Amino acid sequence: MLKISIKRPALILDENKCRMNIIRMAEKARKHHLRFRPHFKTHQSAEIGEWFRDYETEAITVSSVESARYFAQSGWDDITIAFPVNIREIDEINQLAAKIELNLLVVMPETITVLEGYLLNPVGIYIKIDTGSRRTGILPDDEKKINDILERLESCPNLQFKGFLTHAGNAYSADSAEEIAVVHRGVLRDLCQLKEKYRDRYPGLELSMGNTPTCSIMDEFEGIDEIRPGNFAFYDVMQAELGACRYDQIAVALACPIVARHADRNEIVIYGGAVHLSKDVLRREDGSRCYGKVVSLTDSGWSQPLPDTNLRSVSQEHGVIRSSAASFDMFRIGDVIGILPVHSCLTADLMKCYTTLDGWQIAMMKT
Amino acid sequence: MLKISIKRPALILDENKCRMNIIRMAEKARKHHLRFRPHFKTHQSAEIGEWFRDYETEAITVSSVESARYFAQSGWDDITIAFPVNIREIDEINQLAAKIELNLLVVMPETITVLEGYLLNPVGIYIKIDTGSRRTGILPDDEKKINDILERLESCPNLQFKGFLTHAGNAYSADSAEEIAVVHRGVLRDLCQLKEKYRDRYPGLELSMGNTPTCSIMDEFEGIDEIRPGNFAFYDVMQAELGACRYDQIAVALACPIVARHADRNEIVIYGGAVHLSKDVLRREDGSRCYGKVVSLTDSGWSQPLPDTNLRSVSQEHGVIRSSAASFDMFRIGDVIGILPVHSCLTADLMKCYTTLDGWQIAMMKT
Repeated sequence: MLKISIKRPALILDENKCRMNIIRMAEKARKHHLRFRPHFKTHQSAEIGEWFRDYETEAITVSSVESARYFAQSGWDDITIAFPVNIREIDEINQLAAKIELNLLVVMPETITVLEGYLLNPVGIYIKIDTGSRRTGILPDDEKKINDILERLESCPNLQFKGFLTHAGNAYSADSAEEIAVVHRGVLRDLCQLKEKYRDRYPGLELSMGNTPTCSIMDEFEGIDEIRPGNFAFYDVMQAELGACRYDQIAVALACPIVARHADRNEIVIYGGAVHLSKDVLRREDGSRCYGKVVSLTDSGWSQPLPDTNLRSVSQEHGVIRSSAASFDMFRIGDVIGILPVHSCLTADLMKCYTTLDGWQIAMMKT
Repeated sequence: MLKISIKRPALILDENKCRMNIIRMAEKARKHHLRFRPHFKTHQSAEIGEWFRDYETEAITVSSVESARYFAQSGWDDITIAFPVNIREIDEINQLAAKIELNLLVVMPETITVLEGYLLNPVGIYIKIDTGSRRTGILPDDEKKINDILERLESCPNLQFKGFLTHAGNAYSADSAEEIAVVHRGVLRDLCQLKEKYRDRYPGLELSMGNTPTCSIMDEFEGIDEIRPGNFAFYDVMQAELGACRYDQIAVALACPIVARHADRNEIVIYGGAVHLSKDVLRREDGSRCYGKVVSLTDSGWSQPLPDTNLRSVSQEHGVIRSSAASFDMFRIGDVIGILPVHSCLTADLMKCYTTLDGWQIAMMKT
């Protein structure tokens, strides 16, 4: 059993695993001469942010202006907000740009017009390229739109063009490491072609890419200047199933009390549901669902996932685990078990606090 | 446009719609001589709780000990925690039971043994019956387990048997009002048979049921003593699609700034994603998904859902709306649009605060 006492669902963080994950990615960036600009949307914690400094991280990525303000208060002075500029927050952007080196993402030419009109201090501008995720961004061959943005930028002294940025969200639809490699090489090809095309006009232009599956699995970054993975600090079941990590590298587990057992169907009910884990889910070919993998909590952390034992459903506060007949007998009312989340970013966002293996609380950004 | 200024995603609450929803359900309970014990897990707000008192609500339901403490501090003194007893919170349960009339849910005979050993004050006990949802509860024909619990209760002066309680979660899998009626009548039959069987031994035993679809749609409650719907205070897209409400009865909408437009595919990108709405989703037969319906915000609230316009995907902070070609032209960068949530309970839990149409902030329980 865990050394600390758990009354309600608590997000347990294994600091050693988290630091090892950070070291591994920082090392990979160093080896490939990439700027390491980790995405802090996963942990959302100033204290965990400090762990990255131990491995020479100087620049970070966030997904909101609010989050940029929070980390700027902790001394981070080189921040990219990797989200299309929300022009309604222009006052907050101005306040930030007065204090730190701030990079913004632009998808629409008209955003430049608003920034030109209201921006008081210099910012860096990345053009968001859609290399296949079809969430947002400009298609790499949409020369007209890219040129339109670049032309508008030229008349704006406060808007410094930095380069092209992409997030290969389509890597998450891959079924194997091979498919992730195909996505990654497509991203490299698209971005490098853009660099080739515009480098004469913009000799300093950079290519920024990144997500956890490609940055974890791949070892080819020719032409890329910067990576921005985030989830790797914790990893989760989705990443393990994609092959981006091993299960024993997942650094967070939700500790949940057992509140009911149903021997007729080898199911146990836990205090731990959608308001703790989120509703992110992996759907199996047989129609079943996985909302998390089940682990035993131990003195020093937790076990490997229990075989044939699966969080099959969640409602607001309940989770229902279907276990193997062999595992079922070990579960007792009042015991606490661990759930490895399907998507650790959303679980962390819901839990708003971490508990270390020694029982310390680590705070997160308050929203 | 909404009269208030929105910078970031904000959960807008239409107080009139919410009060009308409360009045309608309170009236239905009164008409059928049912105790109205609304579930407060949806709004989680002491201030909104006060609105229920205007319609003579005296007893409430919550889903956690934490939430029971929160509402007890606001003067609610008759609370059912509709979640299997978490024996790890026995200290908090003792503190509550010393102050208010507290009802607990029991699924497992062994829970009674723990409560007997540690409980310092009287509580009411409901036996949770599984009338088809297969989440938790005792099957209605499992006489052995029910009798086991009842026998243990008889030797515990602090544990007063109140009756049988169910939550027909399977109503959410229904495809029509007719299927909901079938689920509801099954619940009535199961519960009434139990009452019939045990009423001689326990003349005061009560039947408690409730969820929003059945309580909204049905008008047969013969034999039932209490209803516990929760979601009806706000309703949401899931309830509208089940036929439990009309779209214009949904009392909350997430206001979201537009940050990108993609004319090639009639899609717009909003600041508003899984950390605001949750990942609860409706899956269509054609394989598409709906994470929310899109409305125009107006002076006095919001419009009906825009036709053929649908929140098709969400990631951590982004939402992607696919619209009809006709609607697409009305969307502009920097505009704010509304999203009716698929599941308002989870959206409210994430947003942790409401903004009224007049711009007032309404606080929620802090966890």
